Amino acid sequence: MNGWLGALEDARVSVNDRGYNFGDGVYEVVRAYNGVMFALEEHLERLALSAAAVEIDLPWEPARLKNITKDTLGKSGIKEALVYIQVTRGTAPRNHVSDEEMRPNLLVTVRNMPHIPPSLYTEGVKAITMPEFRWQIRNVKSISLQASVLAKRRAERAGAAEAIFVLPDGTVTEGASSNIFIVKDGVLMTHPADNRILAGVIRHFVLKVAGTLDVKSVVEPFNILDLVKAEEVFITGTVAEVVPVVNVDGKIIGGGRPGPLTARIHKGFVSLIK
Amino acid sequence: MNGWLGALEDARVSVNDRGYNFGDGVYEVVRAYNGVMFALEEHLERLALSAAAVEIDLPWEPARLKNITKDTLGKSGIKEALVYIQVTRGTAPRNHVSDEEMRPNLLVTVRNMPHIPPSLYTEGVKAITMPEFRWQIRNVKSISLQASVLAKRRAERAGAAEAIFVLPDGTVTEGASSNIFIVKDGVLMTHPADNRILAGVIRHFVLKVAGTLDVKSVVEPFNILDLVKAEEVFITGTVAEVVPVVNVDGKIIGGGRPGPLTARIHKGFVSLIK
Repeated sequence: MNGWLGALEDARVSVNDRGYNFGDGVYEVVRAYNGVMFALEEHLERLALSAAAVEIDLPWEPARLKNITKDTLGKSGIKEALVYIQVTRGTAPRNHVSDEEMRPNLLVTVRNMPHIPPSLYTEGVKAITMPEFRWQIRNVKSISLQASVLAKRRAERAGAAEAIFVLPDGTVTEGASSNIFIVKDGVLMTHPADNRILAGVIRHFVLKVAGTLDVKSVVEPFNILDLVKAEEVFITGTVAEVVPVVNVDGKIIGGGRPGPLTARIHKGFVSLIK
Repeated sequence: MNGWLGALEDARVSVNDRGYNFGDGVYEVVRAYNGVMFALEEHLERLALSAAAVEIDLPWEPARLKNITKDTLGKSGIKEALVYIQVTRGTAPRNHVSDEEMRPNLLVTVRNMPHIPPSLYTEGVKAITMPEFRWQIRNVKSISLQASVLAKRRAERAGAAEAIFVLPDGTVTEGASSNIFIVKDGVLMTHPADNRILAGVIRHFVLKVAGTLDVKSVVEPFNILDLVKAEEVFITGTVAEVVPVVNVDGKIIGGGRPGPLTARIHKGFVSLIK
């Protein structure tokens, strides 16, 4: 935290940190495999884009941010880790219009990677859909996340792992903390990386992996009917990588079993990591 | 802060407070006049509604919250004050789906009322309009406020005091930190208190004052054309109460001078306070 190193539970911030009273910050979650962070450059690039989009001037060069993040991971001694990077606009008495003199606050935390049961991949998960009610610059990885929290809570109450957002015209955007892919007529589909979704790092690599596996993919919006009639559905994210979805709003997808293309893509992704 | 009392700049929270990494909380700002908080009950009622809407179980009875707030104000010794009340979902390692065992965190801060130059009321202010890009449960007074921060920054760059949100169909909702009223054919108009706006406490009392002054008011949506062609425009909020708007997106309102009805309403409101 701004140069301070210590136990996560001892890290404290001022209640005047704009992260605390305005959700005024941006973040990244990076996964470390055997002590090495995957796609750190991509994450830091996206952090810079998010910060620029919300007009936070990062006072650190990319190389400096990279070093701070690597240092923190190294000093934690954790090999299989989730590395969290958060930048808030700064600390100042609460006022919407911020004092331009504020210096952003940087928080980097390292935690043990949570256990992911293998059944997540062999059995798949349930998802629910929800009307899109979040803000409209969803390409920003903002910490103003209360909408996503509510969506996740609703999913959990329905016994589902994810909530998938649907626009009024039926277009499927993304999950509350994941991107979503479907397989339609053997072709992989996912929403374009515009302001309606967050351009997921794993989403990006899944498309790359599909290319190397000669799996055809199109980056185009699809709708709720395409979703529930899909041959396969999966969600992607830094923590769980590629997770098959076998049930959406109670409707069975692909016979209720993870599909072969999902498994191939995930295997290809794991090879890429290695 | 959770029973701790001290100087605002010494107040610290864990970086695991969900207010800090999810903007997962609700808040109120109450103004104290000569040591007495205005409409504290109404603010605490709305806090309870906001908390319920985002599924935060307040562990404090309303009377207890009232006492804590009054105590904090009393101990501050500040007579002309802004009292800020914030409740976050609790403190736990970062995870969208929160541990139900978490206890909410309560922050009450008291600050000196900022100086408001009299010219604000005698000269009026400029406003700009912006496409509504916030989330869709705007009846919740959420701390996930990054959209409002961005709107306020854009307003400031345009030399304006407020940004007014406009839906795709042209309907005017509210300001980034205020409600908005127009006078059309001598009648006061403001958007209904549904999920598209925050039901402002001052908005509520302005409608009451209008009633006692025999000013006709209708609670109905109006559009951007109504706004720029209005006889008078004003915005309402806890800090500055009733502020005349004389310029919207560069278009002059009411000859560029605060209107007589706005002044009457503000005078009536000040009497009510007294």
